[in-house]
Amino acid sequence: MELIDKIKQICEGARVASRSLALLSGAKRNELLRSIAQELMMGAGEIISANEIDLKNARENGISEAMLDRLMLNHARIEGISSAILKIAELADPIGSGEIFTRPNGLEIHKMKTPIGVVAMIYEARPNVTPDATSLCLKSGNAVILRGGKEAINSNKCIVSIIRRALRVCCVDENAVSLIEDTTRESATLLMGMRGYIDVLIPRGGKGLIRSVVENAKVPVIETGAGNCHLYVDESADLDMAIKIALNAKCSRPSVCNAIETILLHKSIADEFLTRFYKETREFSLDIRGCERCLAILPDIKMATEEDFATEYDDYIVSVRVVDDVLEAVSHINAYTTGHSEAIVTESARSADYFVNNIDSCALYVNASTRFTDGGEFGFGAEIGISTQKLHVRGPMGLDALTTTKYIIKGDGQVR
Amino acid sequence: MELIDKIKQICEGARVASRSLALLSGAKRNELLRSIAQELMMGAGEIISANEIDLKNARENGISEAMLDRLMLNHARIEGISSAILKIAELADPIGSGEIFTRPNGLEIHKMKTPIGVVAMIYEARPNVTPDATSLCLKSGNAVILRGGKEAINSNKCIVSIIRRALRVCCVDENAVSLIEDTTRESATLLMGMRGYIDVLIPRGGKGLIRSVVENAKVPVIETGAGNCHLYVDESADLDMAIKIALNAKCSRPSVCNAIETILLHKSIADEFLTRFYKETREFSLDIRGCERCLAILPDIKMATEEDFATEYDDYIVSVRVVDDVLEAVSHINAYTTGHSEAIVTESARSADYFVNNIDSCALYVNASTRFTDGGEFGFGAEIGISTQKLHVRGPMGLDALTTTKYIIKGDGQVR
Repeated sequence: MELIDKIKQICEGARVASRSLALLSGAKRNELLRSIAQELMMGAGEIISANEIDLKNARENGISEAMLDRLMLNHARIEGISSAILKIAELADPIGSGEIFTRPNGLEIHKMKTPIGVVAMIYEARPNVTPDATSLCLKSGNAVILRGGKEAINSNKCIVSIIRRALRVCCVDENAVSLIEDTTRESATLLMGMRGYIDVLIPRGGKGLIRSVVENAKVPVIETGAGNCHLYVDESADLDMAIKIALNAKCSRPSVCNAIETILLHKSIADEFLTRFYKETREFSLDIRGCERCLAILPDIKMATEEDFATEYDDYIVSVRVVDDVLEAVSHINAYTTGHSEAIVTESARSADYFVNNIDSCALYVNASTRFTDGGEFGFGAEIGISTQKLHVRGPMGLDALTTTKYIIKGDGQVR
Repeated sequence: MELIDKIKQICEGARVASRSLALLSGAKRNELLRSIAQELMMGAGEIISANEIDLKNARENGISEAMLDRLMLNHARIEGISSAILKIAELADPIGSGEIFTRPNGLEIHKMKTPIGVVAMIYEARPNVTPDATSLCLKSGNAVILRGGKEAINSNKCIVSIIRRALRVCCVDENAVSLIEDTTRESATLLMGMRGYIDVLIPRGGKGLIRSVVENAKVPVIETGAGNCHLYVDESADLDMAIKIALNAKCSRPSVCNAIETILLHKSIADEFLTRFYKETREFSLDIRGCERCLAILPDIKMATEEDFATEYDDYIVSVRVVDDVLEAVSHINAYTTGHSEAIVTESARSADYFVNNIDSCALYVNASTRFTDGGEFGFGAEIGISTQKLHVRGPMGLDALTTTKYIIKGDGQVR
């Protein structure tokens, strides 16, 4: 069978399965999740064997240690995945509940929350995305089509076959969860073109993947994870707090989208902050790149270019610029931001207000680290990703992001 | 100046204006709307003169009477436009209000509703869309870029210059409302490609326009108005009610998207319904196209083809099919619908439930006409269009559809 026909067949199966999934009660969907959690635990040995093949292949291909760690599954991690699924089963049902309003003509309008239908995910080397995404989609009554990276293909095949086993045990159409086993670029491109089959496509992974999906997809997409985030330290800042937040936002996990890439410093505190920050970051060998005014303070650091300010390093690198005031800081951010998360450290209510009102980013922090932009940290119970677009959902995406609206209108013969 | 540069200039102006608009209070935005309503009334003479040029050109181009009527503005219509704007000023502010939740670590998360930013509208010959869209965008704190059809260009130029006068009177950046005066296809195509400038593009008009925008736009789009709507008359239906609803849904205004295009009849009531419906619709010369079982009842009507069932006529034409039961009706609808509005007439709760639960359309009516799918009829106070997509907004779009989310997070030094 041609690849396009295979993908179309998977899409058609998902579409049919999505109709019956949408009719399941919340209790039944939770039963399904518990069954998946159980089968994954019971199949842990199988999964680890499959994962070992992926790890062996990855090592042969000279993959980095960080990548190997993302790829690796062991008993503890499978237990973690399984218990995360059980937690999702405990969350409130995102489907069904809604407002009812009665119009003067007697029409009763029920605004229902319903599943979107068929969700497709394109992702990279992390096999844990497979059960994570599946459980969020099933919890919200959606069918899911998974297209993971080639590095994790054996793990993914094994996990999906176990999930489909759990679906059969619960008498649910197993096409509710499908894996596209072809991991060529072509399969991703074909999937992005399946208009009429896929209701939303969510890419998860590096910048290259996200950009490729956003630019090439013909189906609706939710853009996730582009984060050129900023920290501004104001004139009135508590400098101990500023140092602590800067260290956390830059160095606690530089590879994630809510880490900062640029620090803006009010001229009056630049000297003290920069001297202390430089010392504190030697343990991370942080590469600090500064503007001319920074170089006057720390002559040994590299000069930051325009390109530096526009770059999401995702690494132990930070660009720093000294500004005259909060206005200049806000102008800089509005010029370079991807609209993800920005923080100000200040004791001035006026500076804080100016900062949060004049920057059009999804999350604006006053005296806290940008690292909190996360579904779990926001209390959403689960996260499918962090949306950096403005339509449908912005910021951390909980289960609600996987629902849409349906109006059911009851009358007794009303005409207009 | 090249057209692309002109459009880019307009987009840049709108982007800048959107920042200051987002800072205006609700009271100030309402003042702006009242000022526009007043200036439009005072400028009614100017508008009517400009409109007369459009009407004269249209007549010379042999435009239809229906089209001429859509194009025409007179004192009464301008008064209607003006009072509609005053009503929008009275509506609740869609901006600002939001939930606040405090996390266990003390972070206070404010979920704010904010303007989307820059809204672009591409539409056709109706000049009333110009003030309508403008007032909804300004009410929700958004800048708007208008690209109307060539038929209404003189009216649009005049209306926009009056609106910009009102903006200046209120000391608001007049680039908050811009008209693209070039009405070639090229200007629409260029506008659709303005990534980074336009936050959402909403097409309003016929099917050709909508399809072209959805397929070609590089900026986020909200798809509106594709309506292949259905009415199913069940075995247990009150036939008087069914006839009344069918007449209303098909013949009261066939050109709109919430009118029905196909009637499905349970075999047991097909004979009586069709005989009566045929008689009642002679005054509209309704062209009824039926399946074979319909032709056995009304031998004189045309045979309906597959293409008929897939067609949104927007005219005095209807296709009719006799089905064995509600299951067959639902299968037919799921095969042909564009997901807009469908109705069932039935006295059976079981049929009604099956119908509303198994069809994935935005509005499902039990014993009422599909013609109610409308922002005004739903009680939203205003309507920018009817979304037939699933993401962001589905169904009639009120002011909320023009907002997005911004999280403001207040802490006292929290790190993760």
